[in-house]
Amino acid sequence: MTLVLHYAPDNASLIVRIVLEELGLAYSTRLVDRSQRAQDSAAYRSINPAGLIPALETPQGVIFETGAIVLWLADRHGRMAPAPDAPERGDFLKWLFFVSNTVHAGLRMTFYPEKYAGAEPSAQSALRATLRARLRGDFHLLDTALVQSGDDYFGGDAPNVLDIYLAALMRWSALYPQGQTGWFDIQSHPALWEMAQALEQRPATRAAQRAEGLGPTPFTAPSLANPPEGSAT
Amino acid sequence: MTLVLHYAPDNASLIVRIVLEELGLAYSTRLVDRSQRAQDSAAYRSINPAGLIPALETPQGVIFETGAIVLWLADRHGRMAPAPDAPERGDFLKWLFFVSNTVHAGLRMTFYPEKYAGAEPSAQSALRATLRARLRGDFHLLDTALVQSGDDYFGGDAPNVLDIYLAALMRWSALYPQGQTGWFDIQSHPALWEMAQALEQRPATRAAQRAEGLGPTPFTAPSLANPPEGSAT
Repeated sequence: MTLVLHYAPDNASLIVRIVLEELGLAYSTRLVDRSQRAQDSAAYRSINPAGLIPALETPQGVIFETGAIVLWLADRHGRMAPAPDAPERGDFLKWLFFVSNTVHAGLRMTFYPEKYAGAEPSAQSALRATLRARLRGDFHLLDTALVQSGDDYFGGDAPNVLDIYLAALMRWSALYPQGQTGWFDIQSHPALWEMAQALEQRPATRAAQRAEGLGPTPFTAPSLANPPEGSAT
Repeated sequence: MTLVLHYAPDNASLIVRIVLEELGLAYSTRLVDRSQRAQDSAAYRSINPAGLIPALETPQGVIFETGAIVLWLADRHGRMAPAPDAPERGDFLKWLFFVSNTVHAGLRMTFYPEKYAGAEPSAQSALRATLRARLRGDFHLLDTALVQSGDDYFGGDAPNVLDIYLAALMRWSALYPQGQTGWFDIQSHPALWEMAQALEQRPATRAAQRAEGLGPTPFTAPSLANPPEGSAT
């Protein structure tokens, strides 16, 4: 199966890359050059009309939306998500959608408040502050769910796509925008913190670290990416 | 299979209800009394800790998140979504996640801007205006995708869960908040408009109309709900 990941370093494509690595799939990458705003180009919009990174070319067409891509990959390969008829499927899906439409969507707005709150700096600050308070509550719900499961990962003994999605979102919460991350303390969510620590030891994470210049502790003590090509913002 | 839908009239639970009707499943409903803010009660938060409507009790536990519930139902019953190994699955998932995390999430913020923009009325207005411009673009992308498919529905000849999700979101765009819906013209998205017209003729939609007091044209010329129990807001 020929898979091409359209990516920018330390963008949401990172989640897809780690899932591809965990699944042991062959894939190639194509850089979306954010320094040239390539995500807004006609060429990229023919791949993803919403102009967002990532997109994955597959033999069955292009898939975009992080949640859609990782769910499709997991189902297709029978790993990293409960099977469609498994009793755990409902629990998995409800948190996957919650992470996509609430945590990821909310965090994205804190990165680009000007795209939502308008031009007024005080409105942008208010939006950021409100979203951060909400996000702390969202992470708390997820931490509580993981504690209640009694497992190390949302996937049980091994990570599923939800674990990887969440670890990346915690990384970005602790990292972006530079100098404005005091609202988030990864260690205040102990189960998520332990999950992120465990993920960090895995070969799939290390492969992504090397490919995107993420440094030695990308989840538990993240530093800004120093990628071999492209730019994160 | 015992299914209990926790609902409020004309809330996102409507999408789940129509899908349940389309699938011909037996289910019962439990009103979440918004006039008493029951969605914030400890009892309801034990069902959905995020405090959002809907939730669906199933023999395998509670599922919340509209997108998760309808995807789970479709997969479980082998209808209203492409099968996990079908070539159309990726296309379906990418638009389902887009509708959940962009269209639905964005529309929700226009209904409750005070929860995001903070207390300042000018900030709330700016957030609403920005989101509405984005939403118009989002609907345009979906309309274009439906035109390009050459089908009547995202589901092909018959609606899938994405069609129903979208028709409900268009209804709410045209209806809420009262007196502030001039930004949205359902007829400016011709393929979506025709899809909504066709959906409106189906017995499943009519059953939902009766149950929630939605009036005779809930998608193409919506009026405020006059439900037999509960309240929409």
